[in-house]
Amino acid sequence: MYSFKNDYSEGAHPQILNALVETNLVQEEGYGEDQYSLQAAELIKKKMNDHNAAIHFLTGGTQTNMTAIAAFLRPHEAAVAAATGHINVHETGAIEATGHKVLAVPSGKDGKLTPAGIQSMLDAHPDEHMVKPKLVYISDTTENGAVYTKSELKAISAFCKRKNLYLYLDGARLGSALTSKANDLELSDLPKLVDAFYVGGTKNGALLGEALVICNNALKDDFRYLMKQKGAMLAKGRLTGIQFLELFRDNLFFDLAAHANTMAMKISGAIQAAGYTFLTPPVSNQIFPILPNDLLEELHQQFNFFDWEKVDENHSAARLVTSWSTKEEAVDAFIASLKEKVTR
Amino acid sequence: MYSFKNDYSEGAHPQILNALVETNLVQEEGYGEDQYSLQAAELIKKKMNDHNAAIHFLTGGTQTNMTAIAAFLRPHEAAVAAATGHINVHETGAIEATGHKVLAVPSGKDGKLTPAGIQSMLDAHPDEHMVKPKLVYISDTTENGAVYTKSELKAISAFCKRKNLYLYLDGARLGSALTSKANDLELSDLPKLVDAFYVGGTKNGALLGEALVICNNALKDDFRYLMKQKGAMLAKGRLTGIQFLELFRDNLFFDLAAHANTMAMKISGAIQAAGYTFLTPPVSNQIFPILPNDLLEELHQQFNFFDWEKVDENHSAARLVTSWSTKEEAVDAFIASLKEKVTR
Amino acid sequence: MYSFKNDYSEGAHPQILNALVETNLVQEEGYGEDQYSLQAAELIKKKMNDHNAAIHFLTGGTQTNMTAIAAFLRPHEAAVAAATGHINVHETGAIEATGHKVLAVPSGKDGKLTPAGIQSMLDAHPDEHMVKPKLVYISDTTENGAVYTKSELKAISAFCKRKNLYLYLDGARLGSALTSKANDLELSDLPKLVDAFYVGGTKNGALLGEALVICNNALKDDFRYLMKQKGAMLAKGRLTGIQFLELFRDNLFFDLAAHANTMAMKISGAIQAAGYTFLTPPVSNQIFPILPNDLLEELHQQFNFFDWEKVDENHSAARLVTSWSTKEEAVDAFIASLKEKVTR
Amino acid sequence: MYSFKNDYSEGAHPQILNALVETNLVQEEGYGEDQYSLQAAELIKKKMNDHNAAIHFLTGGTQTNMTAIAAFLRPHEAAVAAATGHINVHETGAIEATGHKVLAVPSGKDGKLTPAGIQSMLDAHPDEHMVKPKLVYISDTTENGAVYTKSELKAISAFCKRKNLYLYLDGARLGSALTSKANDLELSDLPKLVDAFYVGGTKNGALLGEALVICNNALKDDFRYLMKQKGAMLAKGRLTGIQFLELFRDNLFFDLAAHANTMAMKISGAIQAAGYTFLTPPVSNQIFPILPNDLLEELHQQFNFFDWEKVDENHSAARLVTSWSTKEEAVDAFIASLKEKVTR
Repeated sequence: MYSFKNDYSEGAHPQILNALVETNLVQEEGYGEDQYSLQAAELIKKKMNDHNAAIHFLTGGTQTNMTAIAAFLRPHEAAVAAATGHINVHETGAIEATGHKVLAVPSGKDGKLTPAGIQSMLDAHPDEHMVKPKLVYISDTTENGAVYTKSELKAISAFCKRKNLYLYLDGARLGSALTSKANDLELSDLPKLVDAFYVGGTKNGALLGEALVICNNALKDDFRYLMKQKGAMLAKGRLTGIQFLELFRDNLFFDLAAHANTMAMKISGAIQAAGYTFLTPPVSNQIFPILPNDLLEELHQQFNFFDWEKVDENHSAARLVTSWSTKEEAVDAFIASLKEKVTR
Repeated sequence: MYSFKNDYSEGAHPQILNALVETNLVQEEGYGEDQYSLQAAELIKKKMNDHNAAIHFLTGGTQTNMTAIAAFLRPHEAAVAAATGHINVHETGAIEATGHKVLAVPSGKDGKLTPAGIQSMLDAHPDEHMVKPKLVYISDTTENGAVYTKSELKAISAFCKRKNLYLYLDGARLGSALTSKANDLELSDLPKLVDAFYVGGTKNGALLGEALVICNNALKDDFRYLMKQKGAMLAKGRLTGIQFLELFRDNLFFDLAAHANTMAMKISGAIQAAGYTFLTPPVSNQIFPILPNDLLEELHQQFNFFDWEKVDENHSAARLVTSWSTKEEAVDAFIASLKEKVTR
Repeated sequence: MYSFKNDYSEGAHPQILNALVETNLVQEEGYGEDQYSLQAAELIKKKMNDHNAAIHFLTGGTQTNMTAIAAFLRPHEAAVAAATGHINVHETGAIEATGHKVLAVPSGKDGKLTPAGIQSMLDAHPDEHMVKPKLVYISDTTENGAVYTKSELKAISAFCKRKNLYLYLDGARLGSALTSKANDLELSDLPKLVDAFYVGGTKNGALLGEALVICNNALKDDFRYLMKQKGAMLAKGRLTGIQFLELFRDNLFFDLAAHANTMAMKISGAIQAAGYTFLTPPVSNQIFPILPNDLLEELHQQFNFFDWEKVDENHSAARLVTSWSTKEEAVDAFIASLKEKVTR
Repeated sequence: MYSFKNDYSEGAHPQILNALVETNLVQEEGYGEDQYSLQAAELIKKKMNDHNAAIHFLTGGTQTNMTAIAAFLRPHEAAVAAATGHINVHETGAIEATGHKVLAVPSGKDGKLTPAGIQSMLDAHPDEHMVKPKLVYISDTTENGAVYTKSELKAISAFCKRKNLYLYLDGARLGSALTSKANDLELSDLPKLVDAFYVGGTKNGALLGEALVICNNALKDDFRYLMKQKGAMLAKGRLTGIQFLELFRDNLFFDLAAHANTMAMKISGAIQAAGYTFLTPPVSNQIFPILPNDLLEELHQQFNFFDWEKVDENHSAARLVTSWSTKEEAVDAFIASLKEKVTR
């Protein structure tokens, strides 16, 4: 049964595996000081046109978020996130385990934060009897598949600068965001707008790996100490370096994400053509169609995917996720199955 | 220049890479619930003849140590380790960052703990004004290349049971320990003697990966929560599962470690034959020969390795490390070079 | 200007100060092992008819909450509280600083939790990708001046037992709760219904001091270690012991709280008689009348108190707090002033 | 039986109690913003001739140390202390519980640190695989009753400035230090030499209370947030403010400490006259005479004090502690008893 459950069901893009095989016996320095990691960092800086950034490779999203936030904040400072934000719900309290409260702003269905939402947290935390909001956490794409427009991100960025807040962007699915039809941001915009962000590899063709980019000089000192302390420094750091080298050597990172988006758009187009709507507009590799329960039940017999939430007595939203590895035949089969069931 | 600096200079054993390639496009569950991880866990349980153990795959030693110790201890409880123990020195305070003191027992050159050493910490911490020693941390091989004999480990184990202490064994180099000429332990002895330990993959042929084995039922609950919280749960958990499946499918884990040891013994034999001694008896893949400074200087021109410590005005101890991937030609070249310089 | 801002504007009840003076030069053991503390603990156990409880004296509410919760929970476990709960908002992230997430249940104006609210958090946190709700935190009186009825507390207690959750009651204002006209609980009910709670001294006549009562045997071990570690163990532990001895020697604890309630009821009666309503029914020493803004402005010229929240264009809720030390003349003056302004 | 066990066996100096009684019913702001605390802070600044310092009142030594160190350090930074330092042994891992390693320098019998000792920790922690030594913790008097001379403290201070380390002085017994015959420091020297220190009240006449003085501007920001988070902010902050106001209004703080020292010197003089020696030279209110075991046994029948350590088969060191409240008659009785037993 083909799975649209997530974007980490398979291994890595073959070109990445191939690079691992080809470099395998070269002796290199450990702990991220190998030539591959150094080259990959240079490459990413060049691609985003910021030679001042500090780049570190970590193994996963939760680890990257907790290591960065622990490095950036003093003990009484808190992170502001959408209530649906990954750090607020799906990281088993990793941020709190490093001592910091996450302040959850009630968010719309799209999972985006706004200056108004952040301001509400500043208003609610005026003095030393409460934590001090200091870092704003956003995800692009959001946990609900939405993408930030350039003007939205600029507005948040300007607000954060004005309020002396750090802006941190979780880019677990940054590839899908930057290649979305709804996007008008470029990778090179990010260093100007955020204090730090990460480029997600795990969900875009790597075996594992996230590239943390620290743009704000004030946040760079001693970051490798934090990585080591949080268990984020691989002895064979080459493993992440080599993968990011392949992703950014040419255009692989963007090509893979574009494929995932194309597959998602093909499915969402068919769903729309069949007369159904979505929880949030389908623009990235995660789509949330609202379908009749009996149709969902039938589709579940042929495909793996998650039911997301009940919408009304007879309808639920599903979550379908595509990836760099999604086969177009599987997409076509899903569409055919949908059409067949709908027209029956 | 060939490197004897460490056992993580290369990638993975080709058989492991091959397994990653072959399984690459199979769709699997995420977060360690894939078939490969489940099979690898079963296989390890079978190899150590304990079907009751809980097995989890993590990415590195520091991460494994901090996640396990944070899971096992209450806030006021401390870990007892040799002063040279990895958690005491070389993990950037990872254990303390989870809130727990490491009590360092002055250790001999071999880096081993003894019941007497542990008792000294119990004596020094009698009441609630001090932390409560609760977990004993040992490494096999130790950070100084020594191995515990069965009777030594049994003595520590019995002592810990008597004193109501957990015994935790860091097996970053367990392969080298279990295949050392000085060893009389078997993998299947460990579950009877310790409360938890890990089987190191990173330093024995894997790209990354450590298999934590929790033997004591009281320590098993909710461990996956701790993994997630500490950033130790890979979305593509298959990556560690597949590697351990290869390491333990047949005898690869032991074969690779035996090779590393054989190479180290070949070098140490030549060094002994040349009339030199060692900081600690050479029995594993880390050896510490005491050599004249000028000889060291000459060897450094041909080979990479670490100087370990000054011994007297004219002599220093070096650290030479072999691995699963050490080429016998390189070993021969080293020996030839040594002989040539010595006899010159 | 007389202050109704809070219940900690003055020092201690004179009887307590007197006891401190009288015992001042008696030599005693340090760190809570003095005779006064031991006697006070026995007395409280007797008063609540539970000789099995463990009682510890700490200095303040935040300290008591954070020490207890840190002692009771494993790293991945979370506390469930009303969104208005003291630990969620007004303790500068003290609970998170010990590593634990606080799960905030949207609460009504009364600040109470219900089994349904707790269940919503269990539903939202089903697996290891999220924290595990394990302790339920309630306050009596709540931060909004409400009190739990016996049947409400019984329902929560039964729910917690069924769901294997600890129930912890913050009794910063327990005196006011137990002597409220809306209350039908007795001190001796608490050990049967909760796993731990504290009896607040600071806000009921002591200079400082809270008596933590641990009822559940499973939560008692090594608590003094936690106290010491969190800076909660006073060298001169007699200071809290002597005070609680006075509070519970006869009936002082209840008399002082009753006085505070009586004063609050006198004010609220006059406010009601003048035709005004309340944010929540006035039943304890914190009352929240909704008054015209211009009236509030006039009252502020004679009395200190906090404005609580805007209700509509022309009305706001104020918070008036009485205490053991509130002078009836001040209450009368407030009422006279109110009447004069209203009838003018 | 009279006790020389410690300097916190009694309550507070009567003048302090009296001030508490006299101000008792004045209404004041909470949380340290009362007039007494503000005045006390101004007074201390004036006494130490540094109007730039930030002063905060906390309740005890462990709390002050952990709150300050947590406020000052980033997660990977460590405190360097003598092995006998209070934070290393006698605070139940309070510093580690905030995430920071304590690096213990083997110390002499006097418990003092030296630049050489600190340098040894810098040498041992050169890179990001280890914690970063960042704060130097010293106590004056030390845990072993010794005092730092001005030249010793200047040497440490200069070393710390050169190495970019914070210097923090634990002044639990600062009164005894500054009034010791071995002392040539003045209170006004401290702000020039250390980054932060605390003036101990608990062990010098107060019921409880330590005045933390932050001299380094870079360490001042948001300290009240940290106090609240660590449970160190008393609702009735007046309690510590009033006490320090009395201690520093005239010369009470120094008079009380001088009395304690005088009593200790009287005892130590008699012990020396009787021909006995000391573990460390007796210069403060803690003295450590080495006495025959049978003599100790006899003295224990009349006086309470701690045996400190075994010296040889027949001798042990005792610890005798005097305080502001030590009665000269008790001292005389002790001396008489000693003489009687010695000459018998």
